[in-house]
Amino acid sequence: MMAEENNIESREAQIAISSRVRLARNIDGIPFPTRMNAGQDETIINRVWESISQSSEAVSKNLVLMKIGRLDPIDRQILVEKHIISPDLGESKRESAVIISRDEKISIMINEEDHLRIQCIFPGMQLDDAWQLCNKLDVLLEEKIDFAFDKKLGYLTCCPTNVGTGIRASVMLHLPALGMTGYIRNILEAGGKIGIAIRGIYGENSEASGNMFQISNQVTLGQTEEEIIANVKNVASQIIEQEKLLRRELYNQNPYRFEDRIYRSLGLLSNARIMTAEESLKLLSDVRLGVDMGTIGGINMETLNEMMLVTQPAYIQRLAGKTLSPDERDIRRAELIRSSLRND
Amino acid sequence: MMAEENNIESREAQIAISSRVRLARNIDGIPFPTRMNAGQDETIINRVWESISQSSEAVSKNLVLMKIGRLDPIDRQILVEKHIISPDLGESKRESAVIISRDEKISIMINEEDHLRIQCIFPGMQLDDAWQLCNKLDVLLEEKIDFAFDKKLGYLTCCPTNVGTGIRASVMLHLPALGMTGYIRNILEAGGKIGIAIRGIYGENSEASGNMFQISNQVTLGQTEEEIIANVKNVASQIIEQEKLLRRELYNQNPYRFEDRIYRSLGLLSNARIMTAEESLKLLSDVRLGVDMGTIGGINMETLNEMMLVTQPAYIQRLAGKTLSPDERDIRRAELIRSSLRND
Repeated sequence: MMAEENNIESREAQIAISSRVRLARNIDGIPFPTRMNAGQDETIINRVWESISQSSEAVSKNLVLMKIGRLDPIDRQILVEKHIISPDLGESKRESAVIISRDEKISIMINEEDHLRIQCIFPGMQLDDAWQLCNKLDVLLEEKIDFAFDKKLGYLTCCPTNVGTGIRASVMLHLPALGMTGYIRNILEAGGKIGIAIRGIYGENSEASGNMFQISNQVTLGQTEEEIIANVKNVASQIIEQEKLLRRELYNQNPYRFEDRIYRSLGLLSNARIMTAEESLKLLSDVRLGVDMGTIGGINMETLNEMMLVTQPAYIQRLAGKTLSPDERDIRRAELIRSSLRND
Repeated sequence: MMAEENNIESREAQIAISSRVRLARNIDGIPFPTRMNAGQDETIINRVWESISQSSEAVSKNLVLMKIGRLDPIDRQILVEKHIISPDLGESKRESAVIISRDEKISIMINEEDHLRIQCIFPGMQLDDAWQLCNKLDVLLEEKIDFAFDKKLGYLTCCPTNVGTGIRASVMLHLPALGMTGYIRNILEAGGKIGIAIRGIYGENSEASGNMFQISNQVTLGQTEEEIIANVKNVASQIIEQEKLLRRELYNQNPYRFEDRIYRSLGLLSNARIMTAEESLKLLSDVRLGVDMGTIGGINMETLNEMMLVTQPAYIQRLAGKTLSPDERDIRRAELIRSSLRND
């Protein structure tokens, strides 16, 4: 038995993968993107980029503008896979763009559902930092741009569910114990009742989607940004505690069965010659759990995070330098996973 | 791709695992074991052992006598698992015994269905050698003992299916390609029509039983021993050729899928913490195929042959030095397999 009880307790479980805050904003006097006239899309991109270029704030120096229409389809898809832009923006017929920081923590989508979607993403549980950076960008832009704002309602947005603060705060959690045992279903239901949405990142079936879940606020109105963030953090912390408890319980019930599952998944990842995205997500979830609990040694969490990208089709094709058929991707994916594990 | 076509062709596939010949003999003037009087069982053991002890033949010097009743149940079970004695002899209520050579090539069962079952087992395809050794032992014993013999019928045996030569010649074959594709069913049917029995060693479901099959003669009467052996060899060779063809075909159809299967099985064997006998037989069959075809390097065939024993319950308990529950055996089995693969 490699994992001792003490080991498990002493480790801080890396259950929170990332924290994200995004603000929806629209420019006063221009219709929402769905109703814009030809040319207005271009105008918005120029005004936003100008405001940033003219800013003296240090944060604005590291930003680059990418016009979505000028990216090749694989690069566009990679931005989607990295959660830097939404699938909708990737497929947009309008002139649209994204402003990204070199470290990819900041991404400002232009002409998605709203004129602006200011997003900041941080690793682990860092919702406050993500919010502060978002707020700084919001203030910076508001120096030059009048955002559509109603004294009673707050910021106006295309979809009424975003009106008010326009904020969406979310935490991505890895919840394999809740997923394996099926308890995640109770949590999904309970979340809805307290204004918190909980959903699988890669699809509805939690096992098949690597047990990755996003916890986010549903309400944007009638609460301050700080209250909303505190609420998401609070719910996420409670879910993390439940996940930790359940991991211990699963392990203690039958340590051999627990380790057997983890090591079988590692064995398949390090040996398979063909691997679908779905299977790799499922197996990586087990291995991440094993590394987190100290059952498996010698594998870096960073490597596992990078391997989550390898599960995605466009990223694999970018590495291959060419378009690949689904069968070819499954072979390449298996190769990439094996070589990552060998290097670790 | 590790296995090149040339590699596959140049290798002599180790499809024949072992060759065995056994002769059924009974002592003239004493009833068959099923109808013996009390004390006659003991008499037979003594007469056979005396004949061997008094022989001047070199082969007799390496033989030891084991009384079945004096063995503990685990040792008895190990002899069954090694195919040295039959399950019936292991559970016999009569006084029974087995005479074994140190290299375990010779085993003479006493008071099984017949008074004597003279068995010789050799690795690979060596039916002629097995027959010659059996014949030498038969001649040696016949110098001192009159066997029940009828001029018309030949040697008399308890079961009429053995009357005549009393010979059963068999070859154990590993037939994963025939097993995987299901073509083995045609071969099982065809065998019956030409007086050859083909059956799974570890049970009827070929996949679950590691794709190990025994090819043996059904007829013991009206043919010489040499004819019978030539017939079994001939059928076994034809089956081996079909297996080889099918292996190439399976590989060429989709090398990645072929290697994927082999390596996944290797990955599970080298990583699992719990493994049933059935699963280990199935996975070992894949790995043996991979080693045989040159897909997997660095694993010794001898190791794989030894690992087949680890799949069996008594052998595992002997190694553990104590009785184990089925769950404990599954854990110990996984440990033993991992350590064998690490050492290789």
